[in-house]
Amino acid sequence: MTEASSSEAASNKAVGNQESIRETGPSGDAFHVFDTTLRDGAQREGINLTVADKLTIARYLDEFGVGFIEGGWPGANPRDTEFFARAQTELDLRHAQLVAFGATRRAGGSAAEDPQLAALVASGAPVVTLVAKSHDRHVELALRTTLEENLEMVRDSVRYLRAEGRRVFIDCEHFFDGYRANRDYALAVVRAAHEAGADVVVLCDTNGGTLPGELRAIVAEVLAETGARIGIHAQDDTGCAVANTLAAVDAGATHVQCTANGYGERVGNANLFPVVAALELKLDRRVLPAGRLAEMTRISHAIAEVVNLSPSTHQPYVGVSAFAHKAGLHASAIKVDPDLYQHIDPELVGNTMRMLVSDMAGRASVELKGKELGYDLSADRDLVGRVVARIKKQEKAGYSYEAADASFELLLRDEVKGSRERFFTVESWRAIVEQTPAGGAVNEATVKLWAKGERIVSTGEGNGPVDALDRALRTALERIYPQLAKLELVDYKVRILEGRHGTGSETRVLVDTSDGTREWSTVGVASNVIAASWQALDDAYTYGLLRAGVDPEA
Amino acid sequence: MTEASSSEAASNKAVGNQESIRETGPSGDAFHVFDTTLRDGAQREGINLTVADKLTIARYLDEFGVGFIEGGWPGANPRDTEFFARAQTELDLRHAQLVAFGATRRAGGSAAEDPQLAALVASGAPVVTLVAKSHDRHVELALRTTLEENLEMVRDSVRYLRAEGRRVFIDCEHFFDGYRANRDYALAVVRAAHEAGADVVVLCDTNGGTLPGELRAIVAEVLAETGARIGIHAQDDTGCAVANTLAAVDAGATHVQCTANGYGERVGNANLFPVVAALELKLDRRVLPAGRLAEMTRISHAIAEVVNLSPSTHQPYVGVSAFAHKAGLHASAIKVDPDLYQHIDPELVGNTMRMLVSDMAGRASVELKGKELGYDLSADRDLVGRVVARIKKQEKAGYSYEAADASFELLLRDEVKGSRERFFTVESWRAIVEQTPAGGAVNEATVKLWAKGERIVSTGEGNGPVDALDRALRTALERIYPQLAKLELVDYKVRILEGRHGTGSETRVLVDTSDGTREWSTVGVASNVIAASWQALDDAYTYGLLRAGVDPEA
Repeated sequence: MTEASSSEAASNKAVGNQESIRETGPSGDAFHVFDTTLRDGAQREGINLTVADKLTIARYLDEFGVGFIEGGWPGANPRDTEFFARAQTELDLRHAQLVAFGATRRAGGSAAEDPQLAALVASGAPVVTLVAKSHDRHVELALRTTLEENLEMVRDSVRYLRAEGRRVFIDCEHFFDGYRANRDYALAVVRAAHEAGADVVVLCDTNGGTLPGELRAIVAEVLAETGARIGIHAQDDTGCAVANTLAAVDAGATHVQCTANGYGERVGNANLFPVVAALELKLDRRVLPAGRLAEMTRISHAIAEVVNLSPSTHQPYVGVSAFAHKAGLHASAIKVDPDLYQHIDPELVGNTMRMLVSDMAGRASVELKGKELGYDLSADRDLVGRVVARIKKQEKAGYSYEAADASFELLLRDEVKGSRERFFTVESWRAIVEQTPAGGAVNEATVKLWAKGERIVSTGEGNGPVDALDRALRTALERIYPQLAKLELVDYKVRILEGRHGTGSETRVLVDTSDGTREWSTVGVASNVIAASWQALDDAYTYGLLRAGVDPEA
Repeated sequence: MTEASSSEAASNKAVGNQESIRETGPSGDAFHVFDTTLRDGAQREGINLTVADKLTIARYLDEFGVGFIEGGWPGANPRDTEFFARAQTELDLRHAQLVAFGATRRAGGSAAEDPQLAALVASGAPVVTLVAKSHDRHVELALRTTLEENLEMVRDSVRYLRAEGRRVFIDCEHFFDGYRANRDYALAVVRAAHEAGADVVVLCDTNGGTLPGELRAIVAEVLAETGARIGIHAQDDTGCAVANTLAAVDAGATHVQCTANGYGERVGNANLFPVVAALELKLDRRVLPAGRLAEMTRISHAIAEVVNLSPSTHQPYVGVSAFAHKAGLHASAIKVDPDLYQHIDPELVGNTMRMLVSDMAGRASVELKGKELGYDLSADRDLVGRVVARIKKQEKAGYSYEAADASFELLLRDEVKGSRERFFTVESWRAIVEQTPAGGAVNEATVKLWAKGERIVSTGEGNGPVDALDRALRTALERIYPQLAKLELVDYKVRILEGRHGTGSETRVLVDTSDGTREWSTVGVASNVIAASWQALDDAYTYGLLRAGVDPEA
């Protein structure tokens, strides 16, 4: 594998008048982890970042330890211009260098007079990535210029920015399609950029259609033909962006362009996190500062929060499901040696192993789950058998315990204690939803229950029937159990279990409840959404009171 | 690339007493597209399939044209046993063969007396996949037996099932980890299975930690060493499952195990859709019956609906964003030649190119949709503008018209006609859900409405409040509009739109209604599920009456 180094030392000096080049990781400048979440990642449908968002994400990326953060295209839109302006005073990057993105100068013009290139210099970023056409047909149809003029645009733009003291990377757009269409021309663009002083020539699979085998071969050929330092920018249209990035590195690329969580146009870009994890954990390359990999899960989720997308539960390495085990088959052996069933220790990336309870689970996973909750079940085979049998029966009826830890724990306690611990006994309840002639809506519920020997009748109103039922129940119980005042319903999910049966289907409700410090989930199943919700609420409050240390016998 | 064929012809005969082997695609038996959504895919956290769900998914997979559908583990849980029983009468597969999954016989026993193997035979499936340990440490720690006994378990189990007329595939669990740990033993397991009569030996990257370069090399070595027909089963823990599957095929594997939408334990399995698309479109292998690839997007989304997960918007090939372009810079070039900006023609996989952000795209798609529904809107720019504006406003409030064609058409008609066409005017409605002291449940609804100048008060009872409301509404209207008797609610879906707000969130309800020949979908959004359902029912019946040719003015 090629490790560019001597030419880099020279180029570092050239930008010394901007600011000193920092170490980008344990490999120094020899390997670049280049993040483009703020530029290419922001092209994802549904992402719309403010300047403040971009500054926050840049801080997270720097904390993670990437070497380069491409912040946007200054001059192309006011938001990106503002980002670079504020970055100078508001961003105190420790590891990363900020990169401005732009295009080669206009056809027929001169770089020195190109306002777009001037904006890149004015951004203050020490590094500039210039996008250049490398596919002959794109030069003719999109740029509407000659192949020779495009080469001159590359040379002129690179030389200009180098003279201005900038380090320059060239993104060769549509490189792999261009290489297939006109190999000589694609290589001529690489050589033009390299000879004009670009430090890295990045081969972009812009349309994302290249598979790893072919991509690896082309990267190796370009390296052999040109001697330029090569980077890779892969899009995920075939689902192979991570593999393509690793294939390029295997072929000798020493610069990888990625985005946090794989955000990007269409399907997305190569996901920074699995790329870095594979390099560090599987391919023995140290590309981050020591200790940063263990922050990966937290940083991935934090960035998802900033862009306002739910973190993908099934993302490699960092998803909450990435180390979750469900199969009963596996659970018995996981007890013996967890490493037999995980490809890495999840703590290396800041994640944790979780056991899920489902009807596929056997005795071993119930024992493990019990242990996680503080119940040692290993001595009582009958008890475990009863719990497994009851879970299977309940899940067949539509209950799902893998997302309802608290209901599972209550079920477990029932079996341990021999009967359900109850803080209250319900006599009846009723919910009414009404659309009035005047157009108003009424949601009202009444509960009749017994608690500590007392009969209580209480009515509540709410946004909907479940909300009204929740309020009636709280009103009835709060005088006797003031601990309930701290509890809040924070999420509520409904699923109709059997489709194709119209409104007569079974309904499953999941409720998440918080006491301000911890959350728990409960489940209810019934032929209607209100009755299912009632069950989940009953479990939620029973569990909350147990957690608060209230004794149901008292 | 190796194409096993002569040995397959022999094995086909062996199961001829079960049922004739069907063509699995244009490559016949030479290449297997093996789907395990119903078995391994169901291990995904959050998926909990009913038997009806499994039958529906099997039909979609068969329609897509996979060669094998692994349906579950009969005998291991009641649901899977029931699935195979019902499959015999309820599934009429045209392309696929049904596969039962199980494990090799118990250590120290005999295959002929193993109840688990007997259940596989009893399932009636013509093909059985047996999971076998191939990692020495797993044999010792998980199976707690000797390495030699494990080989005997493989031989004995395969021979038994072959003698029972089954075709047998062997899943070598943890193969790649095992190969690294004890190469000779891993190869011995492959040879034992092959020599005992297994048709395919599937190398499983069970923990998903292997990268494509190493995986490709190991597959090639196993092929060279054993001569067995090789399959691949890749998990996506490194984000490389698709690339790993393709790397194995490149090395000579002729059987790929995948799941729809990549569902599976932890991060998931190799995603069927990008694997098949790459094989067909990029690697020039015909692995599906002609014309099926163009159904891929629809089938991917339909399966997501059945498992009740939102289809991934950014899934390769089939995501709604997979061919979505931000307009602007390259718009003119895209007009000249769209193929410059997409890696394949999206129609090949049943998807479409979309232009984002542009108001023109919104207008264009409304015009197109109108045309599809029989309204020529091209002449009335104002009307189109009003419809676009109203859709934007409604979708912001939580409505979704993509899945609610009938509600969209009603909205369009409102704007065309100037006001909503009404068959009835509601004065008020009320739904009551009650849990009685005796433990019974009452679901009762009353509607008060006007139709053809008449005031009608009607009460209905049902399984739940929405069912009761539906019955009250039908009872009120059926005398006046007998056409309603033919309408049936066939599906009902609820989604809570904003999490983190407890039971006070906005609720979206989708209702599918049928008149016996066609189905339509309507949507309602409100702060409670009953009111949202009411809106969807109102749209459903209004649309149904319009479809039946009833004149609202009459």
